[in-house]
Amino acid sequence: MSRIPVLLDGDPGHDDVMAMVMALASDKLDVKGMTVVAGNSTLANTSTNALRTLEWLGLEHIPVCTGADHPIMRPLQIADSVHGKSGLDGPNFPPLHTKPVEKNFVDFMADIVRESEQKVTIVCMGPQTNVAIFLLANPDLKDRIERIVFMGGAAYGGNWSPAAEFNIWEDAEAAKIVCDSGIPVVMCGLEATNYARVNRREIGEIRAIGTRASTLVADLLQFFADKRPDADDEQKLEAPMHDAVTIASIISDDCVELRDAHLTIETDGSYTQGCTVCDFRGITGDFNAKVSVNLDCDRFIELMKDACRRLK
Amino acid sequence: MSRIPVLLDGDPGHDDVMAMVMALASDKLDVKGMTVVAGNSTLANTSTNALRTLEWLGLEHIPVCTGADHPIMRPLQIADSVHGKSGLDGPNFPPLHTKPVEKNFVDFMADIVRESEQKVTIVCMGPQTNVAIFLLANPDLKDRIERIVFMGGAAYGGNWSPAAEFNIWEDAEAAKIVCDSGIPVVMCGLEATNYARVNRREIGEIRAIGTRASTLVADLLQFFADKRPDADDEQKLEAPMHDAVTIASIISDDCVELRDAHLTIETDGSYTQGCTVCDFRGITGDFNAKVSVNLDCDRFIELMKDACRRLK
Amino acid sequence: MSRIPVLLDGDPGHDDVMAMVMALASDKLDVKGMTVVAGNSTLANTSTNALRTLEWLGLEHIPVCTGADHPIMRPLQIADSVHGKSGLDGPNFPPLHTKPVEKNFVDFMADIVRESEQKVTIVCMGPQTNVAIFLLANPDLKDRIERIVFMGGAAYGGNWSPAAEFNIWEDAEAAKIVCDSGIPVVMCGLEATNYARVNRREIGEIRAIGTRASTLVADLLQFFADKRPDADDEQKLEAPMHDAVTIASIISDDCVELRDAHLTIETDGSYTQGCTVCDFRGITGDFNAKVSVNLDCDRFIELMKDACRRLK
Amino acid sequence: MSRIPVLLDGDPGHDDVMAMVMALASDKLDVKGMTVVAGNSTLANTSTNALRTLEWLGLEHIPVCTGADHPIMRPLQIADSVHGKSGLDGPNFPPLHTKPVEKNFVDFMADIVRESEQKVTIVCMGPQTNVAIFLLANPDLKDRIERIVFMGGAAYGGNWSPAAEFNIWEDAEAAKIVCDSGIPVVMCGLEATNYARVNRREIGEIRAIGTRASTLVADLLQFFADKRPDADDEQKLEAPMHDAVTIASIISDDCVELRDAHLTIETDGSYTQGCTVCDFRGITGDFNAKVSVNLDCDRFIELMKDACRRLK
Repeated sequence: MSRIPVLLDGDPGHDDVMAMVMALASDKLDVKGMTVVAGNSTLANTSTNALRTLEWLGLEHIPVCTGADHPIMRPLQIADSVHGKSGLDGPNFPPLHTKPVEKNFVDFMADIVRESEQKVTIVCMGPQTNVAIFLLANPDLKDRIERIVFMGGAAYGGNWSPAAEFNIWEDAEAAKIVCDSGIPVVMCGLEATNYARVNRREIGEIRAIGTRASTLVADLLQFFADKRPDADDEQKLEAPMHDAVTIASIISDDCVELRDAHLTIETDGSYTQGCTVCDFRGITGDFNAKVSVNLDCDRFIELMKDACRRLK
Repeated sequence: MSRIPVLLDGDPGHDDVMAMVMALASDKLDVKGMTVVAGNSTLANTSTNALRTLEWLGLEHIPVCTGADHPIMRPLQIADSVHGKSGLDGPNFPPLHTKPVEKNFVDFMADIVRESEQKVTIVCMGPQTNVAIFLLANPDLKDRIERIVFMGGAAYGGNWSPAAEFNIWEDAEAAKIVCDSGIPVVMCGLEATNYARVNRREIGEIRAIGTRASTLVADLLQFFADKRPDADDEQKLEAPMHDAVTIASIISDDCVELRDAHLTIETDGSYTQGCTVCDFRGITGDFNAKVSVNLDCDRFIELMKDACRRLK
Repeated sequence: MSRIPVLLDGDPGHDDVMAMVMALASDKLDVKGMTVVAGNSTLANTSTNALRTLEWLGLEHIPVCTGADHPIMRPLQIADSVHGKSGLDGPNFPPLHTKPVEKNFVDFMADIVRESEQKVTIVCMGPQTNVAIFLLANPDLKDRIERIVFMGGAAYGGNWSPAAEFNIWEDAEAAKIVCDSGIPVVMCGLEATNYARVNRREIGEIRAIGTRASTLVADLLQFFADKRPDADDEQKLEAPMHDAVTIASIISDDCVELRDAHLTIETDGSYTQGCTVCDFRGITGDFNAKVSVNLDCDRFIELMKDACRRLK
Repeated sequence: MSRIPVLLDGDPGHDDVMAMVMALASDKLDVKGMTVVAGNSTLANTSTNALRTLEWLGLEHIPVCTGADHPIMRPLQIADSVHGKSGLDGPNFPPLHTKPVEKNFVDFMADIVRESEQKVTIVCMGPQTNVAIFLLANPDLKDRIERIVFMGGAAYGGNWSPAAEFNIWEDAEAAKIVCDSGIPVVMCGLEATNYARVNRREIGEIRAIGTRASTLVADLLQFFADKRPDADDEQKLEAPMHDAVTIASIISDDCVELRDAHLTIETDGSYTQGCTVCDFRGITGDFNAKVSVNLDCDRFIELMKDACRRLK
């Protein structure tokens, strides 16, 4: 079977990097390139973090392109309280020696989609700004996209605000453009991603794999473990590997439980900006999305370990 | 111990009637009167249904006062798909022989609150229109109110729309006025009320109690049972006794699980009108509410049976 | 011809006082009482200012009742940048010797409306909080109200924000409740009230009338004149007597030009809170309002002088 | 002096065509190309109408590129009540023999902007969808744009709704993206464009010029004249040449009166969608726009006649 052509888009970010590892390691996926967006940190930081990750993994041939530096209709608000000053605090990286491609991000995305023999799957791990702009600029390429799998939102509630998850809250208009585009979307939201968590024992097991990938993932997880010196070896840490759930949902059938829904995004509310309104009964519109409702965490960690083993 | 003085407000409605039964039967509560509001059905219907219930139970001395016939800032939208044409389809009532008191509803509420020795607990079982208007008109009586216990909302999701429960959706502005009033509120939302359900066997047990109250409650439940001829004796029916959970939360400590929250109401959203935004972390404001997160259904049904036994 | 029974509602405020003078002096009006609301200043200040005005004019028999101390769904924001610390800076008043009536404001309004032989005209000179709450609490009295004449809004633009005038901006929900009530409304907005202005010469002419009323009005106007020492005798001062235009529109046919409109109030916008949306073509709804589009300023000043002459 | 490089964007539309005539005739402007957008009519119609106009004028070398077929976040709503079924009813055109360029509209715009020696002026005569998407996709080209001159909005009021002009109402989000872009904008709104009107005598004078351009313009105006058989020769017709005011403001200093303003766009309101909030005092933000406040209609008609004379 041929590999699924994938375009990664994200704002690395600890969990973005873990998603990158899982995607780049998979023999089911053919990662055509990555666009970077502002979100977890500034565009400068997220671009650097994407390149650092690829260099560390020896995968500098994967092209990286920098995209939008702020949401479509709002100023940027970063999440440095979570990811630290660099947007990827924890690991020590050597000096950077590669650069993003010198290309407009919309052209970069369009070229990948146009040149792929098969329809491309877009994986969006941050605010959906880049993807939304790409779709607005290239309506004729919509039927060349297999689906858009994103980390973001929640069937119920939120994390950044009581009613919204960070990625969607950050650029609610972009998410609405994507969800209303007519392209099938898969929403990996908090009902699944909040459970993609490890304990100290599992971090140790990942580190013990002994590859550069496993070291990177273990270092990233340790950054959060260090904030909870009180936790014992078995207690799951407050550090969900949110973004990696997108890849898990693509490469495995038995990790993320998905459910059909009519999904739309609230952009207007006083308290509900970025709320992902999931209608599982289809009373407000046709099903346009598959929405995560559960995660098999053990299976997820197994997938992550597999990835660390594969990527030397 | 003295009884808790209670002012009932509602839009009966099947589950409002069950709440009335539970409240009127309790020796812990002293029901001072009831105001009626449009919601489940028109004001004419809900007024009639309140009087019918009291007459049936031989409790015509409880004064009923008709209140607002539409929400504060929106036109009325009734739920006759649920409650039938009369708003209380199912039982056969004899002709009505009592009337609502001839008094303005705000004066009626103010008099009860002012004349009570103890602070009054307001139980709101429908859209919060009456209560909001009463509070707006009588800011000086706020400190004479112990708390406002309402059926409505959900910590997560909704029933009438994907993001809102019917009572709050119907008059979101009223709910916001109540929640922002500074008076302690208890929200009995869908996380508890959706589980206040019976099966055919339990309906039979209620009917077998043999009081007028038990006949009424059984008839009301049978109305929903008749819609599901396929359900066996043990399968819980799709007919939550939502409103009665408010009374259960007052008369029993071990039936409804409550959690502190900062609660506010979305009135502006395109898709989230009436969303009860529950912030259990208190990141958006101080705790101003206790919000239901669970129900002990067996205990709830026991309370309902007790009520049916007490009210002859 | 019998006098028009009038209920004044306002937040004095310089221009409220001028409106009071014009109303109290008129032999066409029968001022039944006045309710006071927070707006230009706090409720404590506006109440005091209403009483001071009546005492100064020797009209202590007009009952004053204090109403709402903040808008229906928003916190209070006062306009002390305009009216000074007391809300009525300028004149020196003797110590206060009267008090507001000890009555709930909604009852006070209801009693006046109910007891009047003729339908009552309500004149609203501040945020419409009191009037809206009164209407919500007394739907059965709507047909006892002739019309509601208010100062507020603009056919186009605003003054407090680019899209909204202060009174409506302050309590947009109240204004919406009033405009949607079905009672005929007359909106005296900025197209008329912005032109209700005097120059130094005219202040002198008012003062020269020599009554207590003329002294009061002249002192109030002088407060604004003192802010513009550079203005010559003929230059109109930046101190529109906004609120008095309401009374002018009632007692005179040839002072305020009114036009039929469908009027509604924006409560949701990010930049347009309190915008009075005036549809003169009736494309969005039936005409429910008369909206001011022009003022004959000379005529207006003549009416003010007449009032000052009448009130000794 | 070198010509101003201009990129036209519009949804022809009668007045778009008149703007095209005025732009293409001017020796002050160098029209580099035109993008077409859905608005007055469907994208198919507006594309055809742009090509028809250029063919009629013998200017087929001006490249036309089709852009967005619906607004960024809303479904398309066309104005066929104004422009007829074709979007350009009135003139009889010969069969079309040219086609739009086969290029993505964002690339088309980017190439023009990038390849121009001087900064380019963008003239937007319809919904701002194309321009907004272009800016989102090419943030690095913003400093290559001299300014964006658009027909749309009003300092006060609207035409399509009481609070909004059609072009801005149609795609309020696009207009907000453009206005917030940091690029200087010139808003030619209803305060100017509503007065760009002719009477029968003036239509006759235009027709008498005897060029293909004058025939086209006269035919377009006659379409509206035919709707008002009752109007005499001097009465100005209800057919403002809205879009042409943009070009008049660029090629002439003494036709359109402009005023500095802080301009933003309401996207959220219940009644004010697409309201162009103009703050001439700068109390809500720095001046980012010049906004039309008046038009010298005689001068405007003179400019139109000049254009008709120049274009043979």
